[in-house]
Amino acid sequence: MAELRETQASPPTTAAGAAVATYLHALHDRITDAIEALDTAKFRRDAWRREDGGGGETRILTEGSVFERAGIGFSHVFGGKLPASASQQRPEIAGARFEAMGLSLVFHPRNPHAPTTHANLRFLTALPPNGEPVWWFGGGFDLTPYYPYDEDAVHWHRTARAACLPFGDGLYENYKAWCDRYFFLPHRNETRGIGGLFFDDQNAGGFDRCFGLLQSVGDHFLPAYIPILARRKDMPYGEHEREFQLYRRGRYVEFNLIYDRGTLFGLQSGGRTESILMSLPPRVRWEYDWQPPPGSPEARLYADFLRPRDYLAGSA
Amino acid sequence: MAELRETQASPPTTAAGAAVATYLHALHDRITDAIEALDTAKFRRDAWRREDGGGGETRILTEGSVFERAGIGFSHVFGGKLPASASQQRPEIAGARFEAMGLSLVFHPRNPHAPTTHANLRFLTALPPNGEPVWWFGGGFDLTPYYPYDEDAVHWHRTARAACLPFGDGLYENYKAWCDRYFFLPHRNETRGIGGLFFDDQNAGGFDRCFGLLQSVGDHFLPAYIPILARRKDMPYGEHEREFQLYRRGRYVEFNLIYDRGTLFGLQSGGRTESILMSLPPRVRWEYDWQPPPGSPEARLYADFLRPRDYLAGSA
Repeated sequence: MAELRETQASPPTTAAGAAVATYLHALHDRITDAIEALDTAKFRRDAWRREDGGGGETRILTEGSVFERAGIGFSHVFGGKLPASASQQRPEIAGARFEAMGLSLVFHPRNPHAPTTHANLRFLTALPPNGEPVWWFGGGFDLTPYYPYDEDAVHWHRTARAACLPFGDGLYENYKAWCDRYFFLPHRNETRGIGGLFFDDQNAGGFDRCFGLLQSVGDHFLPAYIPILARRKDMPYGEHEREFQLYRRGRYVEFNLIYDRGTLFGLQSGGRTESILMSLPPRVRWEYDWQPPPGSPEARLYADFLRPRDYLAGSA
Repeated sequence: MAELRETQASPPTTAAGAAVATYLHALHDRITDAIEALDTAKFRRDAWRREDGGGGETRILTEGSVFERAGIGFSHVFGGKLPASASQQRPEIAGARFEAMGLSLVFHPRNPHAPTTHANLRFLTALPPNGEPVWWFGGGFDLTPYYPYDEDAVHWHRTARAACLPFGDGLYENYKAWCDRYFFLPHRNETRGIGGLFFDDQNAGGFDRCFGLLQSVGDHFLPAYIPILARRKDMPYGEHEREFQLYRRGRYVEFNLIYDRGTLFGLQSGGRTESILMSLPPRVRWEYDWQPPPGSPEARLYADFLRPRDYLAGSA
């Protein structure tokens, strides 16, 4: 990380920002190490600077034994003028100086039985000229299986619930429902996957509570994903499963390019294109009017996994 | 076409609309026949109806000897309320009854030396309750090569110019520049391909002139594309060229899902998803931070074909 720090144009503007950046830096390394420990390939690391202030480091592993593409990027940028799209809920801070940081990852395993996953943790501070700093957290993680395994979905959502549990009743249910609403493709009438957690604009209860929640979500990502990956990464599969995986990856592309606010905001605001689009799957296909054969595992994915569902119903 | 006509919920609302529909129906058949004559595969034909009135026919050929995916659709729909996005230039017709028809095609050849092409011809009539019908034409065609062949680009643009020539000085130059502006990916700083013609909101000079122009553009599509395809479809190629084609197809997906107004409007207004997304390439790949090797044909594509350029400079 030394290289990254040297390339940063500006220091964190608040002590809170410095604390969050330290956590996210360490988590960046922790997740990177865990993935490299599983795969024969290593991450390529690209540090980059933003002319207006700040920078980041994009790490991307390609054509590995387990991951066809795994990207994890940290960015920490400073700006003179908060974009309108970031302050719709808070008109009083439109145009303020700001500090934004985020850790974002998308992992696309090779094996079609292993799910794709995405996680994001972000912290924004606006510094209005005549007022106190305004800050909030956002983040979450979600899972996109190609084949329907109930035990994976239950483990994923149990871990998501465990991440939220110390921070209040109903938090998991709230963020789970938010995730289902956010990762939804109206033109397909499908969720992107089985969801997980999604939250934005969170500052209730003060900085310590909210930062604690962010850390809990970050700390629960590897325990949520790695056991599922370990079960699935070496399962036998054939061309049929591979083709279905490539087909379903098309939905991932459709969501990210049509609906994902982070992707669109990044591209429209002159962000680093290659870092933003590292979320896209390495190989994808589209097929006209494809329908899953009745009674197939693919049909079960559609029926039971691509709609909002309470995966923990009846589970302790 | 008998099947399609039986499924239409409403008759054309104007004599002008009937004339344009007749032309577009015939062109739909003409282009379909020309493609089927070149390929071993046949088009699958799906007639569809729209609940609010009208319908269309989507024709799609997949995994052919020449085309990996070729889609051409005709739609003719009627509505009670013109969407705001269609009447931004003309507030006086917002919310009016309307009739919209269009022929749209995207052909993705298998051979990387053969370019992808897109064409669209459309006619819209708004029927405000207290006023005369308001109508306009839009359309054009554009070419997306994977390998840079100057003779193809010159033929393409000469044919585009010939289509416009009877309708006024400077028309080709105007529509060519419009095409360069429209099919542009800001986040890549690249045009989608070498362009061609693009126009919208055209009604100057009256219906006969504008309909004549639409027909001329439609009639010049096959003479523009088929000679290029014939030269390229059987050229030898290897994995290297195939991989570059799949990579470049990623840009096609990025353009269509992020920027193309027709695609986004169609998806957001509840259009038939499979008909709208038949424009997407069948197989695609993304690669992080790929750069063409200096001096390669791929580098020449970037340098000379993915930016606005006067392909007819010095040409008669």
